[in-house]
Amino acid sequence: MGIEIERKFLLRGDGWRREADEGTDFRQFYLAVRDGLSVRVRIKDEAKALLTVKNGIGMRRGEYEYEIPLADARELEAAHLGEVVAKRRFRVPLGDLTVEVDVFSGALAPLVLAEIELPDEDHPFERPDWLGEEVSEDGRYTNASLALHGRPGPG
Amino acid sequence: MGIEIERKFLLRGDGWRREADEGTDFRQFYLAVRDGLSVRVRIKDEAKALLTVKNGIGMRRGEYEYEIPLADARELEAAHLGEVVAKRRFRVPLGDLTVEVDVFSGALAPLVLAEIELPDEDHPFERPDWLGEEVSEDGRYTNASLALHGRPGPG
Repeated sequence: MGIEIERKFLLRGDGWRREADEGTDFRQFYLAVRDGLSVRVRIKDEAKALLTVKNGIGMRRGEYEYEIPLADARELEAAHLGEVVAKRRFRVPLGDLTVEVDVFSGALAPLVLAEIELPDEDHPFERPDWLGEEVSEDGRYTNASLALHGRPGPG
Repeated sequence: MGIEIERKFLLRGDGWRREADEGTDFRQFYLAVRDGLSVRVRIKDEAKALLTVKNGIGMRRGEYEYEIPLADARELEAAHLGEVVAKRRFRVPLGDLTVEVDVFSGALAPLVLAEIELPDEDHPFERPDWLGEEVSEDGRYTNASLALHGRPGPG
């Protein structure tokens, strides 16, 4: 299902909330994580479930996503690795692009991360002042690492 | 998607071929295998692909199977663990049940295994003379173990 190019950032302040939608609740967990490959189940607003295989690391990775029955997702949750991650995802328009801002709750609070999906690696975008340090290549900020190892400490 | 109860046997001779259908070619590989959980992709007759999550060990296990695009399966094959397993599966009627006989090719030849799926653990069935030693509880004969560790040696 093609290659996903994604850049990931920490945030500075709450300026992004002015343009954000009302958000969607995600609960997600990993069934498997190995060298560059992960298998994740995500439940959206307790209404829809997706099984996603990601293959590859960094900004370029193959992503394969399939809707599955909600009942299956709930059964599979018993087999989760690490922590079940809960977050609310807000969508913020940015020119021709959309920024997804994830506000984590539970064990990962008060972490907030922004992701921008790009049509290609060199696609330009205006950088709003609320976008902080880029962590695209920092493996500690992958969702898999957050679920398995928790929130990175300061420094 | 519910619990699968399956008994697995070695074979004695070719008597099963008399009643068998013409068979289906399977090519399958594992994306992940961990304590009791596996994620497998299976391609049937190069025409249809399934992603399957199995959870649990022994005769009782949860099995969750989803059809995925054939193109996805072919891309994901690059991420396979161990060996890609090739086999031809024949269906053999046995009273009200069906025996699936898997004839492995490639690295696992000349292994042949029979599986019987039962409506419950105590369901009786007539035991034909071509059914050999039961290996339901022998972890070396799981498809995941065969893909990762190869064919068990004699004894």
